[in-house]
Amino acid sequence: MFRVLCRCSYDGTNFHGFQRQKHLRSVQQEIEDVLEIIHKRPVKIYAASRTDAGVHALDQVFHFDTELRMKEYNILNALNSRLPKDIYINECMFVDKQFYSRFSCRGKTYRYLIDLGKYNPLLKNYRYFPPKPDLIDVDKIIAATNVFIGTHDFKSFTKNKHTTNTVRTISDFEVIKQDDLLTFVITGNGFLHHMVRIIVAMLLEVGRGKCSKEDLKAILAARNRLLAPKLVPAHGLYLVETYY
Amino acid sequence: MFRVLCRCSYDGTNFHGFQRQKHLRSVQQEIEDVLEIIHKRPVKIYAASRTDAGVHALDQVFHFDTELRMKEYNILNALNSRLPKDIYINECMFVDKQFYSRFSCRGKTYRYLIDLGKYNPLLKNYRYFPPKPDLIDVDKIIAATNVFIGTHDFKSFTKNKHTTNTVRTISDFEVIKQDDLLTFVITGNGFLHHMVRIIVAMLLEVGRGKCSKEDLKAILAARNRLLAPKLVPAHGLYLVETYY
Repeated sequence: MFRVLCRCSYDGTNFHGFQRQKHLRSVQQEIEDVLEIIHKRPVKIYAASRTDAGVHALDQVFHFDTELRMKEYNILNALNSRLPKDIYINECMFVDKQFYSRFSCRGKTYRYLIDLGKYNPLLKNYRYFPPKPDLIDVDKIIAATNVFIGTHDFKSFTKNKHTTNTVRTISDFEVIKQDDLLTFVITGNGFLHHMVRIIVAMLLEVGRGKCSKEDLKAILAARNRLLAPKLVPAHGLYLVETYY
Repeated sequence: MFRVLCRCSYDGTNFHGFQRQKHLRSVQQEIEDVLEIIHKRPVKIYAASRTDAGVHALDQVFHFDTELRMKEYNILNALNSRLPKDIYINECMFVDKQFYSRFSCRGKTYRYLIDLGKYNPLLKNYRYFPPKPDLIDVDKIIAATNVFIGTHDFKSFTKNKHTTNTVRTISDFEVIKQDDLLTFVITGNGFLHHMVRIIVAMLLEVGRGKCSKEDLKAILAARNRLLAPKLVPAHGLYLVETYY
């Protein structure tokens, strides 16, 4: 058996997330269905990230094992020619059997897009248009991002109550304003469930003056999700890079 | 009764075109449904352009008559608060009773987007990714656009056999290349059914060396659709401005 790593992009709009779910369309199911056709047996894939419904990916990574003696280029084409148009495989490569997409991963970069301009129906699945954008002070948001940089226990910033280790390291976090578009770019060694969306939502609260930078520090220290009850919508979120 | 002009944007992806059709979702039906709720009677709207299924609009114009004594701003809000997220009204204004969105229109600008780069599933409904983009010579396309500028009989470049007057004036036609993105921007006093999509498709044939600029001139002169049998997909097309 040979282990194959794939890097892929997808539009999250019409998926109920990456992970396979009964009777619901998922990215995993679509890819596994194609691999089953190629292999004439069920093939399971293992992904680096479990993106939620509506979340987009420009660089999701998964791996699977194959007995087929195909060239990397031919695996890529066999997949892309059969996959639906909202998934695309950018790269396939053989890796050694110790490689595991999730556990070998050194880090990821996510991007979140907020549009402070007039609502545009063509971007409805690709940017978050918050209500009353005029009341958002972008400078306050930018000044507060460094609260999250470094190694912290992010228990206040995750939905999942059952994760035992909630310590993560954020190595880089930038907020870029270009005209009406606000781009949050966050890089870390790993992210808890809903972590990026809660962080962005709480920074929006700072921008609205409903919460201060000092409050954010206290919420982080408190390790209690009830103190960070906000969540921005999934469709503004993009998994943009996965590092090994 | 007062006549109201509205300028709107929509994402054409999930509509079977602008025009109302039985049992199929259309932009007209969604807007008329909301107007019926507001007026407590059926209200018919009249649009400047009939965009096809999948075609997007940044500035479609329509008008309707109302007996309600509402402010322009309140009509706008009453519509936007009830319309689905893939339609948005940008402006409402009272106009005199001689105004008619289709016949008063002086011209329109359409845009067509072709992406010559790697396929991106997030743009699948917003740009056309042609096969074998490496074989397209953009300079040849740019050099051939002026064939269409001016007043011509565009009978070769329309699907509709029943239109009696097929003479239109193209006042401006530019093709802009920015990295892998090719943007066709065409302005004219009116456009026949499928006209922009056939023109772009035939220019792509020129870019592929399957047809010359001289051939295009001959096809235009021949007034015969059989000589221009190509059509690019609807999802790359945008109605970007409507002039009065």
